Amino acid sequence: MTNFNVILFDDFETLDAFGPAEVIGKLPDAYRLKFFSLNGGIVRSSQQVRVDTLPFADIDPSGILLIPGGMGTRTLVNDGNFIGQLRILSEKALYVLTVCTGSALLARTNLLNGIKATSNKMAFDWACSNGVEVNWAKKARWVKDGKFYTSSGVSAGIDMALGFVGDMHGIKTAQAIANGIEYIWNPDMDNDPFAVG
Amino acid sequence: MTNFNVILFDDFETLDAFGPAEVIGKLPDAYRLKFFSLNGGIVRSSQQVRVDTLPFADIDPSGILLIPGGMGTRTLVNDGNFIGQLRILSEKALYVLTVCTGSALLARTNLLNGIKATSNKMAFDWACSNGVEVNWAKKARWVKDGKFYTSSGVSAGIDMALGFVGDMHGIKTAQAIANGIEYIWNPDMDNDPFAVG
Repeated sequence: MTNFNVILFDDFETLDAFGPAEVIGKLPDAYRLKFFSLNGGIVRSSQQVRVDTLPFADIDPSGILLIPGGMGTRTLVNDGNFIGQLRILSEKALYVLTVCTGSALLARTNLLNGIKATSNKMAFDWACSNGVEVNWAKKARWVKDGKFYTSSGVSAGIDMALGFVGDMHGIKTAQAIANGIEYIWNPDMDNDPFAVG
Repeated sequence: MTNFNVILFDDFETLDAFGPAEVIGKLPDAYRLKFFSLNGGIVRSSQQVRVDTLPFADIDPSGILLIPGGMGTRTLVNDGNFIGQLRILSEKALYVLTVCTGSALLARTNLLNGIKATSNKMAFDWACSNGVEVNWAKKARWVKDGKFYTSSGVSAGIDMALGFVGDMHGIKTAQAIANGIEYIWNPDMDNDPFAVG
Protein backbone atom coordinates (compact mmCIF):
# COMPACT_ATOMS: atom_id res chain seq x y z
CA MET A 1 0.00 0.00 0.00
CA THR A 2 1.50 3.33 -1.10
CA ASN A 3 0.37 6.68 0.23
CA PHE A 4 -0.87 9.00 -2.51
CA ASN A 5 -0.49 12.43 -0.95
CA VAL A 6 -2.43 15.30 -2.49
CA ILE A 7 -1.11 18.79 -1.66
CA LEU A 8 -3.82 21.44 -1.29
CA PHE A 9 -3.71 25.19 -0.62
CA ASP A 10 -6.18 28.06 -0.72
CA ASP A 11 -7.33 28.80 -4.28
CA PHE A 12 -6.25 25.46 -5.69
CA GLU A 13 -8.11 24.47 -8.86
CA THR A 14 -10.78 21.93 -7.91
CA LEU A 15 -10.50 19.52 -10.83
CA ASP A 16 -6.67 19.61 -10.83
CA ALA A 17 -6.74 17.78 -7.51
CA PHE A 18 -9.93 15.75 -7.69
CA GLY A 19 -9.71 14.49 -11.28
CA PRO A 20 -6.55 12.48 -10.49
CA ALA A 21 -7.94 11.59 -7.03
CA GLU A 22 -10.99 10.06 -8.74
CA VAL A 23 -8.71 7.88 -10.90
CA ILE A 24 -6.30 6.84 -8.13
CA GLY A 25 -9.25 6.17 -5.81
CA LYS A 26 -10.24 3.29 -8.08
CA LEU A 27 -7.21 1.33 -6.86
CA PRO A 28 -7.84 1.26 -3.09
CA ASP A 29 -5.73 -1.86 -2.64
CA ALA A 30 -2.68 -0.10 -4.12
CA TYR A 31 -3.00 3.51 -2.94
CA ARG A 32 -4.17 5.29 0.19
CA LEU A 33 -5.39 8.79 -0.72
CA LYS A 34 -4.62 11.56 1.77
CA PHE A 35 -5.06 15.31 1.51
CA PHE A 36 -2.60 17.77 3.03
CA SER A 37 -1.96 21.49 3.38
CA LEU A 38 0.97 23.31 4.96
CA ASN A 39 -0.69 23.74 8.36
CA GLY A 40 -3.67 21.38 7.97
CA GLY A 41 -7.32 22.28 8.53
CA ILE A 42 -9.80 23.64 6.03
CA VAL A 43 -8.52 24.95 2.67
CA ARG A 44 -10.81 26.40 0.01
CA SER A 45 -10.55 25.84 -3.72
CA SER A 46 -11.21 28.60 -6.25
CA GLN A 47 -14.58 26.90 -6.82
CA GLN A 48 -15.50 27.26 -3.11
CA VAL A 49 -14.94 23.63 -2.10
CA ARG A 50 -13.84 23.56 1.54
CA VAL A 51 -11.62 20.53 2.16
CA ASP A 52 -10.45 19.23 5.52
CA THR A 53 -6.70 18.50 5.34
CA LEU A 54 -3.87 17.10 7.45
CA PRO A 55 -0.68 19.17 8.00
CA PHE A 56 2.52 18.60 5.98
CA ALA A 57 4.10 17.36 9.23
CA ASP A 58 1.91 14.25 9.02
CA ILE A 59 3.03 13.24 5.51
CA ASP A 60 4.82 9.95 5.02
CA PRO A 61 7.31 11.36 2.48
CA SER A 62 8.06 7.98 0.88
CA GLY A 63 4.73 8.04 -0.94
CA ILE A 64 3.57 9.68 -4.16
CA LEU A 65 2.96 13.43 -4.32
CA LEU A 66 0.29 15.20 -6.39
CA ILE A 67 0.56 18.98 -6.79
CA PRO A 68 -2.42 20.74 -8.37
CA GLY A 69 -2.37 24.22 -9.86
CA GLY A 70 -4.70 27.14 -9.61
CA MET A 71 -4.68 30.82 -8.77
CA GLY A 72 -3.16 30.06 -5.37
CA THR A 73 0.12 29.15 -7.06
CA ARG A 74 0.60 32.80 -8.10
CA THR A 75 1.49 33.77 -4.55
CA LEU A 76 2.87 30.42 -3.36
CA VAL A 77 5.75 30.49 -5.88
CA ASN A 78 7.13 33.35 -3.75
CA ASP A 79 6.53 31.64 -0.38
CA GLY A 80 9.97 30.41 0.64
CA ASN A 81 8.72 28.28 3.53
CA PHE A 82 6.13 26.49 1.38
CA ILE A 83 8.57 25.92 -1.49
CA GLY A 84 11.27 24.73 0.92
CA GLN A 85 8.96 22.15 2.46
CA LEU A 86 7.67 21.13 -0.97
CA ARG A 87 11.28 20.54 -2.04
CA ILE A 88 11.95 18.22 0.90
CA LEU A 89 8.74 16.26 0.20
CA SER A 90 9.39 16.10 -3.55
CA GLU A 91 12.97 14.89 -3.09
CA LYS A 92 11.84 12.00 -0.90
CA ALA A 93 8.74 11.09 -2.93
CA LEU A 94 8.64 7.97 -5.06
CA TYR A 95 6.89 9.93 -7.83
CA VAL A 96 5.80 13.55 -8.11
CA LEU A 97 2.80 14.41 -10.30
CA THR A 98 1.75 17.96 -11.11
CA VAL A 99 -1.32 19.35 -12.87
CA CYS A 100 -1.53 22.73 -14.60
CA THR A 101 0.47 25.42 -12.78
CA GLY A 102 1.41 22.89 -10.09
CA SER A 103 4.54 22.49 -12.22
CA ALA A 104 5.43 26.14 -11.48
CA LEU A 105 5.51 25.29 -7.77
CA LEU A 106 7.65 22.24 -8.43
CA ALA A 107 9.93 24.26 -10.74
CA ARG A 108 10.55 26.70 -7.88
CA THR A 109 12.11 23.85 -5.86
CA ASN A 110 14.75 23.58 -8.65
CA LEU A 111 14.13 19.82 -8.82
CA LEU A 112 12.88 20.19 -12.41
CA ASN A 113 16.12 21.80 -13.61
CA GLY A 114 17.22 19.92 -16.75
CA ILE A 115 13.99 17.88 -16.63
CA LYS A 116 11.39 17.82 -19.41
CA ALA A 117 8.07 19.11 -18.11
CA THR A 118 4.86 20.85 -19.16
CA SER A 119 2.14 23.07 -17.72
CA ASN A 120 -1.18 24.51 -18.76
CA LYS A 121 -1.28 26.37 -22.04
CA MET A 122 -3.16 29.47 -20.86
CA ALA A 123 -0.45 30.44 -18.36
CA PHE A 124 2.46 28.76 -20.10
CA ASP A 125 4.85 31.73 -20.22
CA TRP A 126 4.22 32.43 -16.55
CA ALA A 127 4.89 28.79 -15.65
CA CYS A 128 8.13 28.85 -17.66
CA SER A 129 9.26 32.01 -15.88
CA ASN A 130 9.33 30.02 -12.63
CA GLY A 131 12.00 27.62 -13.90
CA VAL A 132 14.29 28.94 -16.61
CA GLU A 133 16.43 25.78 -16.47
CA VAL A 134 13.45 23.46 -16.98
CA ASN A 135 13.13 21.81 -20.40
CA TRP A 136 9.54 23.03 -20.95
CA ALA A 137 7.45 21.17 -23.56
CA LYS A 138 5.06 23.54 -25.35
CA LYS A 139 3.02 20.74 -26.86
CA ALA A 140 2.26 17.78 -24.58
CA ARG A 141 -0.88 16.50 -22.86
CA TRP A 142 1.49 15.29 -20.18
CA VAL A 143 5.21 14.53 -19.80
CA LYS A 144 7.07 11.82 -17.89
CA ASP A 145 10.75 12.33 -17.09
CA GLY A 146 12.21 10.08 -14.44
CA LYS A 147 10.02 10.23 -11.36
CA PHE A 148 8.30 13.43 -12.50
CA TYR A 149 4.94 13.48 -14.27
CA THR A 150 3.71 16.94 -15.27
CA SER A 151 0.46 17.64 -17.10
CA SER A 152 -1.18 20.44 -19.03
CA GLY A 153 -4.23 22.29 -17.72
CA VAL A 154 -6.91 20.95 -15.39
CA SER A 155 -8.53 18.05 -17.29
CA ALA A 156 -5.15 16.90 -18.62
CA GLY A 157 -4.49 15.73 -15.07
CA ILE A 158 -7.10 12.99 -15.53
CA ASP A 159 -5.35 11.79 -18.70
CA MET A 160 -1.99 11.88 -16.90
CA ALA A 161 -3.33 9.99 -13.87
CA LEU A 162 -4.66 7.29 -16.19
CA GLY A 163 -1.26 7.28 -17.95
CA PHE A 164 0.44 6.88 -14.57
CA VAL A 165 -1.86 3.95 -13.75
CA GLY A 166 -1.04 2.50 -17.18
CA ASP A 167 2.70 2.73 -16.47
CA MET A 168 2.35 1.16 -13.03
CA HIS A 169 -0.42 -1.41 -13.54
CA GLY A 170 -0.77 -1.88 -17.30
CA ILE A 171 -2.85 -0.19 -19.95
CA LYS A 172 -5.81 -2.57 -19.46
CA THR A 173 -6.20 -1.46 -15.86
CA ALA A 174 -6.06 2.18 -16.92
CA GLN A 175 -8.63 1.67 -19.67
CA ALA A 176 -10.93 -0.22 -17.30
CA ILE A 177 -10.84 2.70 -14.87
CA ALA A 178 -11.55 5.17 -17.70
CA ASN A 179 -14.51 3.06 -18.80
CA GLY A 180 -15.74 2.73 -15.22
CA ILE A 181 -15.88 6.50 -14.81
CA GLU A 182 -17.21 6.87 -18.39
CA TYR A 183 -14.24 9.07 -19.27
CA ILE A 184 -13.19 9.46 -22.90
CA TRP A 185 -9.46 9.02 -22.21
CA ASN A 186 -6.85 10.70 -24.37
CA PRO A 187 -4.14 8.07 -23.83
CA ASP A 188 -1.49 9.73 -26.03
CA MET A 189 0.71 12.08 -23.99
CA ASP A 190 1.80 13.83 -27.20
CA ASN A 191 -1.78 14.54 -28.37
CA ASP A 192 -2.31 18.06 -27.01
CA PRO A 193 -5.29 19.75 -28.67
CA PHE A 194 -4.81 22.88 -26.55
CA ALA A 195 -1.19 23.65 -27.46
CA VAL A 196 -0.65 27.07 -28.99
CA GLY A 197 2.08 28.39 -31.26
CA MET B 1 -26.70 35.73 -8.90
CA THR B 2 -28.18 32.24 -8.56
CA ASN B 3 -27.20 29.77 -5.85
CA PHE B 4 -25.81 26.54 -7.27
CA ASN B 5 -26.35 24.08 -4.42
CA VAL B 6 -24.34 20.85 -4.48
CA ILE B 7 -25.77 18.03 -2.33
CA LEU B 8 -23.12 15.82 -0.71
CA PHE B 9 -23.32 12.71 1.49
CA ASP B 10 -20.91 10.09 2.78
CA ASP B 11 -19.54 7.93 -0.04
CA PHE B 12 -20.47 10.35 -2.80
CA GLU B 13 -18.38 9.94 -5.97
CA THR B 14 -15.74 12.69 -6.01
CA LEU B 15 -15.81 13.62 -9.70
CA ASP B 16 -19.63 13.48 -9.91
CA ALA B 17 -19.75 16.55 -7.69
CA PHE B 18 -16.52 18.36 -8.50
CA GLY B 19 -16.49 17.98 -12.30
CA PRO B 20 -19.67 20.09 -12.63
CA ALA B 21 -18.49 22.38 -9.79
CA GLU B 22 -15.31 23.08 -11.79
CA VAL B 23 -17.42 24.11 -14.81
CA ILE B 24 -19.98 26.19 -12.91
CA GLY B 25 -17.19 27.82 -10.91
CA LYS B 26 -16.01 29.48 -14.12
CA LEU B 27 -19.10 31.73 -14.03
CA PRO B 28 -18.71 33.39 -10.62
CA ASP B 29 -20.80 36.39 -11.68
CA ALA B 30 -23.77 34.13 -12.47
CA TYR B 31 -23.58 31.35 -9.84
CA ARG B 32 -22.65 31.10 -6.18
CA LEU B 33 -21.42 27.55 -5.45
CA LYS B 34 -22.38 26.09 -2.08
CA PHE B 35 -21.98 22.59 -0.70
CA PHE B 36 -24.58 20.97 1.58
CA SER B 37 -25.28 17.74 3.41
CA LEU B 38 -28.34 16.70 5.43
CA ASN B 39 -26.91 17.79 8.79
CA GLY B 40 -23.89 19.79 7.63
CA GLY B 41 -20.30 19.28 8.77
CA ILE B 42 -17.66 17.02 7.22
CA VAL B 43 -18.74 14.41 4.67
CA ARG B 44 -16.30 11.99 3.03
CA SER B 45 -16.31 10.92 -0.60
CA SER B 46 -15.52 7.35 -1.67
CA GLN B 47 -12.10 8.71 -2.67
CA GLN B 48 -11.44 9.96 0.88
CA VAL B 49 -12.01 13.67 0.21
CA ARG B 50 -13.34 15.26 3.40
CA VAL B 51 -15.56 18.23 2.54
CA ASP B 52 -16.93 20.81 4.94
CA THR B 53 -20.65 21.35 4.24
CA LEU B 54 -23.58 23.46 5.36
CA PRO B 55 -26.83 21.78 6.52
CA PHE B 56 -29.88 21.39 4.25
CA ALA B 57 -31.66 23.85 6.56
CA ASP B 58 -29.40 26.62 5.20
CA ILE B 59 -30.28 26.04 1.51
CA ASP B 60 -32.00 28.78 -0.43
CA PRO B 61 -34.33 26.39 -2.29
CA SER B 62 -34.93 28.76 -5.21
CA GLY B 63 -31.48 27.99 -6.63
CA ILE B 64 -30.14 25.16 -8.76
CA LEU B 65 -29.57 21.70 -7.27
CA LEU B 66 -26.79 19.26 -8.23
CA ILE B 67 -27.10 15.68 -6.99
CA PRO B 68 -24.04 13.44 -7.49
CA GLY B 69 -24.05 9.66 -7.35
CA GLY B 70 -21.77 7.14 -5.73
CA MET B 71 -21.92 4.15 -3.42
CA GLY B 72 -23.64 6.27 -0.78
CA THR B 73 -26.79 6.32 -2.90
CA ARG B 74 -27.26 2.58 -2.33
CA THR B 75 -28.40 3.19 1.24
CA LEU B 76 -29.79 6.72 0.79
CA VAL B 77 -32.52 5.55 -1.62
CA ASN B 78 -34.09 3.85 1.42
CA ASP B 79 -33.67 6.83 3.77
CA GLY B 80 -37.15 8.32 3.94
CA ASN B 81 -36.06 11.48 5.74
CA PHE B 82 -33.30 12.23 3.20
CA ILE B 83 -35.54 11.50 0.21
CA GLY B 84 -38.38 13.56 1.70
CA GLN B 85 -36.13 16.58 2.16
CA LEU B 86 -34.61 16.07 -1.29
CA ARG B 87 -38.12 16.10 -2.73
CA ILE B 88 -38.95 19.44 -1.10
CA LEU B 89 -35.69 20.96 -2.36
CA SER B 90 -36.09 19.51 -5.86
CA GLU B 91 -39.67 20.74 -6.18
CA LYS B 92 -38.64 24.29 -5.36
CA ALA B 93 -35.41 24.32 -7.38
CA LEU B 94 -35.12 26.25 -10.63
CA TYR B 95 -33.21 23.33 -12.19
CA VAL B 96 -32.15 19.94 -10.83
CA LEU B 97 -29.03 18.29 -12.25
CA THR B 98 -27.99 14.74 -11.40
CA VAL B 99 -24.84 12.78 -12.21
CA CYS B 100 -24.55 8.98 -12.32
CA THR B 101 -26.72 7.29 -9.67
CA GLY B 102 -27.78 10.69 -8.38
CA SER B 103 -30.76 10.11 -10.68
CA ALA B 104 -31.76 7.12 -8.53
CA LEU B 105 -32.07 9.46 -5.53
CA LEU B 106 -34.11 11.91 -7.57
CA ALA B 107 -36.26 9.06 -8.94
CA ARG B 108 -37.11 8.06 -5.36
CA THR B 109 -38.75 11.47 -4.84
CA ASN B 110 -41.21 10.50 -7.65
CA LEU B 111 -40.50 13.84 -9.36
CA LEU B 112 -39.04 11.99 -12.36
CA ASN B 113 -42.23 9.99 -12.98
CA GLY B 114 -43.08 10.35 -16.67
CA ILE B 115 -39.86 12.29 -17.22
CA LYS B 116 -37.06 11.21 -19.58
CA ALA B 117 -33.85 10.64 -17.64
CA THR B 118 -30.61 8.66 -17.65
CA SER B 119 -28.03 7.29 -15.24
CA ASN B 120 -24.66 5.59 -15.35
CA LYS B 121 -24.38 2.52 -17.52
CA MET B 122 -22.62 0.23 -15.01
CA ALA B 123 -25.51 0.37 -12.52
CA PHE B 124 -28.28 1.11 -14.99
CA ASP B 125 -30.70 -1.65 -13.99
CA TRP B 126 -30.32 -0.72 -10.33
CA ALA B 127 -30.99 2.94 -11.13
CA CYS B 128 -34.10 1.98 -13.12
CA SER B 129 -35.38 -0.13 -10.23
CA ASN B 130 -35.64 3.05 -8.16
CA GLY B 131 -38.16 4.64 -10.48
CA VAL B 132 -40.29 2.27 -12.53
CA GLU B 133 -42.39 5.16 -13.87
CA VAL B 134 -39.36 7.10 -15.14
CA ASN B 135 -38.79 7.15 -18.90
CA TRP B 136 -35.20 5.86 -18.65
CA ALA B 137 -32.90 6.46 -21.66
CA LYS B 138 -30.43 3.59 -22.12
CA LYS B 139 -28.28 5.54 -24.54
CA ALA B 140 -27.63 9.18 -23.68
CA ARG B 141 -24.59 11.12 -22.45
CA TRP B 142 -27.11 13.32 -20.71
CA VAL B 143 -30.83 14.11 -20.93
CA LYS B 144 -32.76 17.34 -20.49
CA ASP B 145 -36.49 17.16 -19.78
CA GLY B 146 -38.11 20.30 -18.43
CA LYS B 147 -36.12 21.52 -15.45
CA PHE B 148 -34.38 18.16 -15.00
CA TYR B 149 -30.89 17.42 -16.37
CA THR B 150 -29.66 13.87 -15.73
CA SER B 151 -26.30 12.51 -16.87
CA SER B 152 -24.58 9.18 -17.30
CA GLY B 153 -21.64 8.10 -15.16
CA VAL B 154 -19.11 10.35 -13.44
CA SER B 155 -17.32 12.19 -16.29
CA ALA B 156 -20.58 12.62 -18.20
CA GLY B 157 -21.46 15.16 -15.52
CA ILE B 158 -18.80 17.49 -16.94
CA ASP B 159 -20.32 17.22 -20.42
CA MET B 160 -23.78 17.85 -18.98
CA ALA B 161 -22.62 20.85 -16.95
CA LEU B 162 -21.10 22.34 -20.11
CA GLY B 163 -24.38 21.55 -21.91
CA PHE B 164 -26.29 23.33 -19.14
CA VAL B 165 -24.01 26.36 -19.50
CA GLY B 166 -24.60 26.22 -23.27
CA ASP B 167 -28.37 26.25 -22.75
CA MET B 168 -28.23 29.14 -20.28
CA HIS B 169 -25.40 31.29 -21.67
CA GLY B 170 -24.81 30.12 -25.24
CA ILE B 171 -22.56 27.53 -26.81
CA LYS B 172 -19.62 29.91 -27.16
CA THR B 173 -19.47 30.44 -23.41
CA ALA B 174 -19.60 26.69 -22.83
CA GLN B 175 -16.85 26.02 -25.37
CA ALA B 176 -14.68 28.78 -23.90
CA ILE B 177 -14.96 27.15 -20.46
CA ALA B 178 -14.11 23.73 -21.93
CA ASN B 179 -11.04 25.22 -23.64
CA GLY B 180 -10.03 27.04 -20.46
CA ILE B 181 -9.98 23.80 -18.48
CA GLU B 182 -8.43 21.97 -21.47
CA TYR B 183 -11.37 19.56 -21.52
CA ILE B 184 -12.21 17.67 -24.70
CA TRP B 185 -15.94 18.29 -24.51
CA ASN B 186 -18.44 15.82 -25.91
CA PRO B 187 -21.15 18.39 -26.72
CA ASP B 188 -23.66 15.90 -28.16
CA MET B 189 -26.02 14.62 -25.47
CA ASP B 190 -26.92 11.66 -27.68
CA ASN B 191 -23.29 10.56 -28.21
CA ASP B 192 -22.90 7.97 -25.48
CA PRO B 193 -19.84 5.77 -26.06
CA PHE B 194 -20.50 3.82 -22.84
CA ALA B 195 -24.07 2.69 -23.57
CA VAL B 196 -24.57 -1.07 -23.57
CA GLY B 197 -27.20 -3.24 -25.24
